[in-house]
Amino acid sequence: MTTDKSTEKDVTLVGAGLAGCLLATLLGRRGYQVTVLERRSDPRLAGAERGRSINLALSARGLDALERVGLREDALAAALPMRGRMVHPLGASPNFQSYSADGTRAINSISRSGLNEALLETAEKTPGVTVLFESRVEAVDLDRGIVTVARPDGVQERAASIVLACDGAYSATRRAVQFREGANYAQDFLEHGYKELTIPARDGDFAVDPGALHIWARGGSMMIALPNLDKSFTCTLFWPKEGPGGLASLTTPEAVRAHFQREYPDVVDLMPTLVEDYLINPVGSLVTVRAWPWTAHGARASVALVGDAAHAIVPFYGQGANCAFEDAIEIDALLEKHDGDWSRVLPAYEAARKPNTDAIAEMALQNFVEMRDLVNSRVHRTKNTIVHALERWLPSLVVSRYELVSFSTVPYAEVLRRSRLQSRVLSGAAAAGVVGVVGAAVKVLRRR
Amino acid sequence: MTTDKSTEKDVTLVGAGLAGCLLATLLGRRGYQVTVLERRSDPRLAGAERGRSINLALSARGLDALERVGLREDALAAALPMRGRMVHPLGASPNFQSYSADGTRAINSISRSGLNEALLETAEKTPGVTVLFESRVEAVDLDRGIVTVARPDGVQERAASIVLACDGAYSATRRAVQFREGANYAQDFLEHGYKELTIPARDGDFAVDPGALHIWARGGSMMIALPNLDKSFTCTLFWPKEGPGGLASLTTPEAVRAHFQREYPDVVDLMPTLVEDYLINPVGSLVTVRAWPWTAHGARASVALVGDAAHAIVPFYGQGANCAFEDAIEIDALLEKHDGDWSRVLPAYEAARKPNTDAIAEMALQNFVEMRDLVNSRVHRTKNTIVHALERWLPSLVVSRYELVSFSTVPYAEVLRRSRLQSRVLSGAAAAGVVGVVGAAVKVLRRR
Repeated sequence: MTTDKSTEKDVTLVGAGLAGCLLATLLGRRGYQVTVLERRSDPRLAGAERGRSINLALSARGLDALERVGLREDALAAALPMRGRMVHPLGASPNFQSYSADGTRAINSISRSGLNEALLETAEKTPGVTVLFESRVEAVDLDRGIVTVARPDGVQERAASIVLACDGAYSATRRAVQFREGANYAQDFLEHGYKELTIPARDGDFAVDPGALHIWARGGSMMIALPNLDKSFTCTLFWPKEGPGGLASLTTPEAVRAHFQREYPDVVDLMPTLVEDYLINPVGSLVTVRAWPWTAHGARASVALVGDAAHAIVPFYGQGANCAFEDAIEIDALLEKHDGDWSRVLPAYEAARKPNTDAIAEMALQNFVEMRDLVNSRVHRTKNTIVHALERWLPSLVVSRYELVSFSTVPYAEVLRRSRLQSRVLSGAAAAGVVGVVGAAVKVLRRR
Repeated sequence: MTTDKSTEKDVTLVGAGLAGCLLATLLGRRGYQVTVLERRSDPRLAGAERGRSINLALSARGLDALERVGLREDALAAALPMRGRMVHPLGASPNFQSYSADGTRAINSISRSGLNEALLETAEKTPGVTVLFESRVEAVDLDRGIVTVARPDGVQERAASIVLACDGAYSATRRAVQFREGANYAQDFLEHGYKELTIPARDGDFAVDPGALHIWARGGSMMIALPNLDKSFTCTLFWPKEGPGGLASLTTPEAVRAHFQREYPDVVDLMPTLVEDYLINPVGSLVTVRAWPWTAHGARASVALVGDAAHAIVPFYGQGANCAFEDAIEIDALLEKHDGDWSRVLPAYEAARKPNTDAIAEMALQNFVEMRDLVNSRVHRTKNTIVHALERWLPSLVVSRYELVSFSTVPYAEVLRRSRLQSRVLSGAAAAGVVGVVGAAVKVLRRR
């Protein structure tokens, strides 16, 4: 280790999840010695946890990131394209709503564990990268430059001067940042939790259309389904945790079956293990994490939060992993720009990313409301049709928020700004048409 | 310890600060065995920390609480009444603004350490209460019913089934609540920090009027001063921590002196130790803490947050201690109401207090802006005069927010509701008078 940490080439990276493995690979390629400390055992040896976020939607930002480490084509080959939403109203036929104006663009359903393993293998193959499993970070002492790690053979103190915390929404490493005076921090849980169910393959084929993300919108709650390579679907319930109709309210096989017969009649017969899955699978929580700053500096070490550790978001825009990958890309780009000077890279990283992660956090929360409201799918379908028509007519002016988030790498903050402006202009124009002079007068008055 | 924790009579209370000592006394009087674990050494043996929150403003809620443990009169005897604000504009004479319509009501400047010691002695004298100093809580295990405590003679595990966390804004015990899935938590720091200075007695008397809280409002920043029994004043700067004019920007004796000569010319000569105090005294942080729930329950123990640990607020309404005392009073009242059944007391406690502590947190933040804006003191004085006149004419309808907060025990949430309604009605009436029909029309339109 050099005494000047600003151009330190040894990096301690916490967490071998999606973002951690990508970042380790990018750093290894730049000649850094990267030690990845992962709390869990090697996922290639252990099995997956039951009912925990089985697949995710990979979109433009994620694919762009994977391309940089040569994994884009492999990922696409292991993924199923979803070109739109299939909305399943209660008591009516499903209807398809394209994600893009031209109907060709798709988000990609991919196995989280499969993608993680591919990234892990890529990281481990990269010279300079070492992954240590069953290595739980207990404490980070920035003044001593020490990371305390619990391993099966005992507790170790490891020297560290640059610590990158990629250890997720419940980051232990974050405490090194969070408990400093002046560190803002918030964790906000939704009243809704999630639970995963399965629609298995039927007669050797997908039981419903695999080219769409399926949504059963029921106002206060919803179910979605994403296709898997084995022709099954993973369904996720997003229901209130407590109260009537909540996840905790169904406690017997009869109650589960009756509820699904009533609320999801078109798929209940496609779910032979419904009752078992429902009663056994865990309830997950949906948390938004906001922290600022993302970095902390002591006499001998600095730490930076990356991905969910800095900005966990709810999953309703399918952007959690895509967004975390962008953090890694940003750090990589800044190391290039600032000649590996961490004292410039880390502040520039947090300043560049924070407005964007705030924006996607907000849009993800908003999209939950929008998705649940698809219950009123006729109105939504009309709106979707109108927006897509406008996009085709005025492609340089109108692009839907969904397309900018999912099919572009335009920074999220810019997407939020553009889509807000666009909707103000569109509804302003509509209002002017309807209320005419009165509307305009009110607007002027309001500005005062 | 009983096996049923719902009527447990052994209580572990963390923190021997103001709220902790009050609550320990109230519990002791009910026959509980209370062990108070305090991180610091006995304040009666150690000296006070330099430049850390020397005095506070005790108002109706605090006095009401102290009365219940027989300390009201002692506290008033050791306090100095402040009947209003003395506003010191730059380049004009100070002007006095009464806190109450009749000019007689006062908030009371009292030494924090003196008040704490009186409460501590009252607690220790109460049968059943034991205070252990130098006892730092390291962990709370709710399933095992164990509190891990670091003491000078080593680390102990203590059995505990009811844990009351009165350990302040930076509560260590709070982690037992905060890191549970579904627990919302936020800590928000102001850009402003604080630093304490002194105006000593002058020729054996107060150097400025001791009957007021002095405010030097300077827009983006301010200084206040509260009188002490020894005829000195403790001044507190509330300035941005960084940037031009920030606390970190003055680093030499010359810079300090020049800045105060320019910004606080009427008192700079009253502060002989200004330069030393400024350069040596620490900068404090101003944090708002929001948590929900305030309680957590394991197989063998429950924990509840009390006072700043649950809801630290900024000091601009002088309500931090007053509000924390109300928490203790609420718990005491609920133990009476629910026959000591903690399984009913704790949920009722958090449900009753949360709306009120949210309300005072919001009002305290708003009051910072209001106090700094006293820079425009002529406008404010006029407003103050009008509100007080209205109060005298229509006492049953109009009571200022300040009076309800400081001179009543009306729940804070009710104060916020009433004062909002009142200001809407007053400004609505004013608007109607000025803009007449147009104003009314706009209002109707806005409602749509």
